[in-house]
Amino acid sequence: MLYEVKVFISLKEAVLDPAGAAVKSSLHHLGFAGVEDVRIGKVMTLQIESTEDKIEAAVTEMCEKLLANPVIEDYRFEIEEVVSQ
Amino acid sequence: MLYEVKVFISLKEAVLDPAGAAVKSSLHHLGFAGVEDVRIGKVMTLQIESTEDKIEAAVTEMCEKLLANPVIEDYRFEIEEVVSQ
Repeated sequence: MLYEVKVFISLKEAVLDPAGAAVKSSLHHLGFAGVEDVRIGKVMTLQIESTEDKIEAAVTEMCEKLLANPVIEDYRFEIEEVVSQ
Repeated sequence: MLYEVKVFISLKEAVLDPAGAAVKSSLHHLGFAGVEDVRIGKVMTLQIESTEDKIEAAVTEMCEKLLANPVIEDYRFEIEEVVSQ
């Protein structure tokens, strides 16, 4: 079965986000004074061939081993079956 | 009114994703042979003070002017009102 998995990776709340701070200040320079905070994360969209009973454990292992840095990042994911037309 | 806006930025389909390709090959090296494709995008979470009639136009302008590169990226966003406790 082919699955489409969206992995959302974000910095833990306590972690400083310099890239977000830079975007915020640029937006202020462009005149968007109402912007109070900017946090930047990643979305990884994976196409994975797997079986229903294994997909969740496999994605969790991918996140723990490679996709997310457990020290500074949190992750969550959404799994969808790809139905071929 | 305070709004939380999530801006999803992704590479246009026709654009090569070298970072995604690198993650895919690393996952294969870790034994996840079932991974067929990886695409990496960004999620920007913004806290914005605005009025209901202006927020959508302001976020569109931010995306067009700074947050997304219109040549190689697509964007979409979700706007939510932040209800103070």
